[in-house]
Amino acid sequence: MDTQTTIESLARRAKTASIELRTLSSATKNAALEAMARAIIERKAEIFAANALDVEGAKQKGLEGALLDRMTLSDKKIAAMADGCHQVAALPDPTGRVLSGEIRPNGLKIEKISVPLGVLAVIYESRPNVTVDAAILALKAGNAVILRGGSEAIETNKTLARIIGEAATSVGIGADAIQIVESTDRSASSHLAQLPQYIDLIVPRGGEGLKKALAKVATVPIIFAAGGVCHVYVDEFAELDMAQSIAFNSKTQGPSACNAAETLLVHRAVAPQFLPLMAQKLIAGGVELRGDDASRALVPQMGEANEEDWDAEYLSLILAVKIVDSLEEAVEHISTHGTAHSEAIVTQNVRRAEEFLAKVDAAAVYVNASTRFSDGFEFGLGAEVGISTQKLHSRGPMGLESLTSTKYVVRGDGQLRG
Amino acid sequence: MDTQTTIESLARRAKTASIELRTLSSATKNAALEAMARAIIERKAEIFAANALDVEGAKQKGLEGALLDRMTLSDKKIAAMADGCHQVAALPDPTGRVLSGEIRPNGLKIEKISVPLGVLAVIYESRPNVTVDAAILALKAGNAVILRGGSEAIETNKTLARIIGEAATSVGIGADAIQIVESTDRSASSHLAQLPQYIDLIVPRGGEGLKKALAKVATVPIIFAAGGVCHVYVDEFAELDMAQSIAFNSKTQGPSACNAAETLLVHRAVAPQFLPLMAQKLIAGGVELRGDDASRALVPQMGEANEEDWDAEYLSLILAVKIVDSLEEAVEHISTHGTAHSEAIVTQNVRRAEEFLAKVDAAAVYVNASTRFSDGFEFGLGAEVGISTQKLHSRGPMGLESLTSTKYVVRGDGQLRG
Repeated sequence: MDTQTTIESLARRAKTASIELRTLSSATKNAALEAMARAIIERKAEIFAANALDVEGAKQKGLEGALLDRMTLSDKKIAAMADGCHQVAALPDPTGRVLSGEIRPNGLKIEKISVPLGVLAVIYESRPNVTVDAAILALKAGNAVILRGGSEAIETNKTLARIIGEAATSVGIGADAIQIVESTDRSASSHLAQLPQYIDLIVPRGGEGLKKALAKVATVPIIFAAGGVCHVYVDEFAELDMAQSIAFNSKTQGPSACNAAETLLVHRAVAPQFLPLMAQKLIAGGVELRGDDASRALVPQMGEANEEDWDAEYLSLILAVKIVDSLEEAVEHISTHGTAHSEAIVTQNVRRAEEFLAKVDAAAVYVNASTRFSDGFEFGLGAEVGISTQKLHSRGPMGLESLTSTKYVVRGDGQLRG
Repeated sequence: MDTQTTIESLARRAKTASIELRTLSSATKNAALEAMARAIIERKAEIFAANALDVEGAKQKGLEGALLDRMTLSDKKIAAMADGCHQVAALPDPTGRVLSGEIRPNGLKIEKISVPLGVLAVIYESRPNVTVDAAILALKAGNAVILRGGSEAIETNKTLARIIGEAATSVGIGADAIQIVESTDRSASSHLAQLPQYIDLIVPRGGEGLKKALAKVATVPIIFAAGGVCHVYVDEFAELDMAQSIAFNSKTQGPSACNAAETLLVHRAVAPQFLPLMAQKLIAGGVELRGDDASRALVPQMGEANEEDWDAEYLSLILAVKIVDSLEEAVEHISTHGTAHSEAIVTQNVRRAEEFLAKVDAAAVYVNASTRFSDGFEFGLGAEVGISTQKLHSRGPMGLESLTSTKYVVRGDGQLRG
């Protein structure tokens, strides 16, 4: 069979499996998750053996450094996968919840309830833990899942999918509930993205390249997370010590994450007092600074920012710095250059705070806290499917709820429309 | 300017207008809606004059019957538009609602609030009342709107848009909050559909042709309402009088609506008792019946259904009829041939009812009520933006809530991620 035929048959089977999953009890889903946790630990040797093959292959292809680390499993990473299963089992079931309901004047009882989406395809890159992570989130929300991981970790991914799939069937769940694309043919992803009759949602977990390539061809909806060009704005009325800590944390605590700050905006009134000390701390922390003329006048060792710097998602220890005359100018800069991800103001003035929260249009807006908190776990969602910067369906950190749809359930006793 | 340049400049202005709209108070929005209601009545003469031009042009092009009726305004239709403004003004503001919220262990106060989507484009066909209807729903939810109506009603639409636009500016709302595409160039819609940097959502209000044409070219998200191939399943344990009334109402009360039943499924055990009387009533009501062999054996005057009939959205007084052996077969038929719109079971057996509700995957599922109730007003939403059969963002009858997004608002006191 060619790749297209294989993918289509896999998707059709997933669709069929999703019908059974729709009415699965929470108890069965949780039993499957617990069985998966046990199986991952018990069958560790198989997983390591498969991973060794992948690592060997990757080394032969010249892979090294962070990329090699990411795909190499350890006891700790395997324990984390099993823990993930326990954690997701412990979460409330996101389906079957009554989201709203009323009795209409004519006696119709109308409820809006959460239901599984149906079939998810998760397309990811080199980290094999996503195989388990994606499958358990999908299952918990009652969805069938098609996994498509990076080719360099294919043996590990196949082994993990087989182990958790067998754990699921051991409690009576159909074998097609969790499927993996075994082919490493590059066209598999675009075939998946063009089967809206079978697949309800594609969740890409990887870099910008992957997302753009999918968006170009997809007819299946994609949850799209644009990059994060996030800002910290230090207002005229900021407590400057707090501002320093928040800006430093937002930039350096996880610089490769999408919720890290890329640009620091400083109100002109506090810049002379704030910026030299702030710069000293950032530079000591290994951060390269790129400022506008006004910032560089205050901090001579700062590099020069050009127009591209305002739009850059560095994902590394570089920070653009700009002095602004007002909150309005800060908001205007954020509207023009931000990606509507996570935006923070530091201020003690309540009117400024509320104005920033109202005027900045982003998935998450902060007063006096680090942008790094934009995360499913930090937000108390118990899981993270990803962070959406689109406005429809789900915006910001996505928990299990983002993998559900809704259904109106209407109970009557012979009502007719008149 | 060519059409593309015109549309792009219009969309850019809408985006700018949407920033101001985001922080508009409910009081101002409602004042605008009330001013619109007054202006529509006071400036009736202008509206009739423009409509007369359109009607004259349409007659010259040979338009007649229902199409001509639909675009021809009357005192009653104008009063209905003004009433619509009052009704939407009276609805609760769908933005600024706290949808969830908690204080995290680290003291961060996290709220998820509803916010305007931003910019909507509403693309519709010949009925000029959509100009007002779409604009007021968009405004109530804090969105800028771009209206694109059918060319045959262009003068009426332009006049209506001008009148309600001026009413909005009279209370201080920017002129670009409500814009209409003045060009009747057919390419305008596809240009609108390809400006995701400015437009957040396209709402098509029209037939399948319009939706398919848009879906083909759109990079802006579209709320997609597939046709309604809806079913009434008369179970073995149905109260047959009720079943007869519900089937008759579902088919005949509004046969051109997407929530009208197109196929009647009857359990074999009750078919001999139920179907002949049912057929008599339907035929007396002017309904053409097309049945499978088993149905035709019971009702000889029934026509023959072929495979295409099971997938047909007649939107007229035709009904396909099929006898099934079990609830499972009914569910299977609905899964295969339905469009996941509105599906009903008639039964007195609670287990059968619950099984049907759980297993049928549709925007609305009914026990013992007419499928015709799938409607924003009937569901108590106070308005209807459309009926969505897609699973993401909004499913089923869409109220004002479907024109909003969400934003996480996080208030801290110096919290850092550790």
